[in-house]
Amino acid sequence: MKIKIPATSANLGPGFDCLGLAIALYNEVSIKPASYQSISVKGEGEENVKLKNNNIFVSIFYEIYQELVGKKDPFRFEFYNNIPFSRGLGSSSAVIVGAIASAYEMAGIKASRETILNKALIYETHPDNIAPAVYGGFTSSVVENNKVKTLQKKLSDKLKVVMVIPDRPMSTAHSRTLLPKSYMMKNVVYNLSRASMLCAAFFSENWEYLRVASKDCMHEHRRMKQMRELFDVRDMALKNGALMSTLSGSGSSFFNLVKAEDATKIATALKKSFEMFRVEIFELDNNGFEIVQS
Amino acid sequence: MKIKIPATSANLGPGFDCLGLAIALYNEVSIKPASYQSISVKGEGEENVKLKNNNIFVSIFYEIYQELVGKKDPFRFEFYNNIPFSRGLGSSSAVIVGAIASAYEMAGIKASRETILNKALIYETHPDNIAPAVYGGFTSSVVENNKVKTLQKKLSDKLKVVMVIPDRPMSTAHSRTLLPKSYMMKNVVYNLSRASMLCAAFFSENWEYLRVASKDCMHEHRRMKQMRELFDVRDMALKNGALMSTLSGSGSSFFNLVKAEDATKIATALKKSFEMFRVEIFELDNNGFEIVQS
Repeated sequence: MKIKIPATSANLGPGFDCLGLAIALYNEVSIKPASYQSISVKGEGEENVKLKNNNIFVSIFYEIYQELVGKKDPFRFEFYNNIPFSRGLGSSSAVIVGAIASAYEMAGIKASRETILNKALIYETHPDNIAPAVYGGFTSSVVENNKVKTLQKKLSDKLKVVMVIPDRPMSTAHSRTLLPKSYMMKNVVYNLSRASMLCAAFFSENWEYLRVASKDCMHEHRRMKQMRELFDVRDMALKNGALMSTLSGSGSSFFNLVKAEDATKIATALKKSFEMFRVEIFELDNNGFEIVQS
Repeated sequence: MKIKIPATSANLGPGFDCLGLAIALYNEVSIKPASYQSISVKGEGEENVKLKNNNIFVSIFYEIYQELVGKKDPFRFEFYNNIPFSRGLGSSSAVIVGAIASAYEMAGIKASRETILNKALIYETHPDNIAPAVYGGFTSSVVENNKVKTLQKKLSDKLKVVMVIPDRPMSTAHSRTLLPKSYMMKNVVYNLSRASMLCAAFFSENWEYLRVASKDCMHEHRRMKQMRELFDVRDMALKNGALMSTLSGSGSSFFNLVKAEDATKIATALKKSFEMFRVEIFELDNNGFEIVQS
């Protein structure tokens, strides 16, 4: 079988740990029965031996597979990785969701996307990347009693993403230690009102509201100070007509949602000013993970 | 001229200071040129002499009217009040919005609803009641640079409200002093994720998500402890099929959103158990204030 899993961008400014969307940039994994277990990696991480010796996808896959089948069969795993690591593009969530969905598929057991999402929550405590990796589109998620509830909205093909991918990572774990443990009421209301309006804007396709609705005062500023060029990335993206421009997850990538017709102009402007960063135009994904070959 | 202004319910659980909706329960005010200024009050507050001697509607009306016209003409004001005072039903916002909209009307100056909303923000710093009083429907609002931005969603006629109106008020000002000045990260995410999903649920009319999405951990519990019967009101409303059951604004009323076909059953159950409270079924309002007679 072969599965593809989309990259995802979480937080989207004020939607800390709950909002996200899926991007048409995919990791693909092919899994075949074999006489002994083996792994090959192409693309992102292919030079990293750790991915062969201590592969998280394979660990999670077997954990679920054994739970379902009761034994550990040997497989050949071939990874075609397109999602950069540690850049806030949901590569970990793609691994987790892909491993769980593949295990069900290889075990021959049908599982709903909801089941796969709830399994994924065991490995990744925040739903903001795993939910769009599972469902695609724009997702608003709540965790209650260790279960994820998600409402999804399909994203229009009139939208594209201009992603700015820095040459160096920002660690999620370290990034989180920069954040305060508590927030003043007025700052809570700042994010609460904007995250709410962000949902309203995506669900009603009133994209002109995204600029105001995507502002955050809880995490971005502190994180971006580790890579100050990102403030200029935002200024330039917004000046050139981006609908919204936010840190992707906990960084280091910067997510710019744009009208499809503005994508090239905005990408060109960003490329010119930030030569050391990758600047890529992506479509959005509305399907979440897909078994592309059974 | 005659204007009617709807009651409103704000917060709606997690949407502290930003979410609200309008209810088809109206205050009406008739204003006519007269040889000397006079006031009559019918309905809620008619026994309160303060409403005649120090009427906030009249004060705001003249403040705006003088700003627009440059002088203070005498008028006869007749109030027909249906919105209870100090019960979390937006009576103050109805007064503010009504006074401003009337002043423009009597001055013969056309003003957009946005203009009226932004004027109203001068008198009421939170947009959660004034926005639905202006636009009707469900509203998600953000304040930026002292201006309100609001996204509105019309409410389906398949929905009704069962409002439980206690026999005594809870003061908004006192109610706010009960709240902490800062909130732990996990509590912020609790409300952030739910307020976002509440918007998603209203905008997509996925009402089955409202129950999870309407939970709050920032203000309701502390406020409801002043009137413990409200915990039982919620339990009974939800047990009988209410879609969501939240403190209306800062109380004391309890707002229960229900499917139209369940309204009578839920209202009857609540009336039976809480004889000392008013229990009323209302439709929702999708228009905001209206000049019903020019």
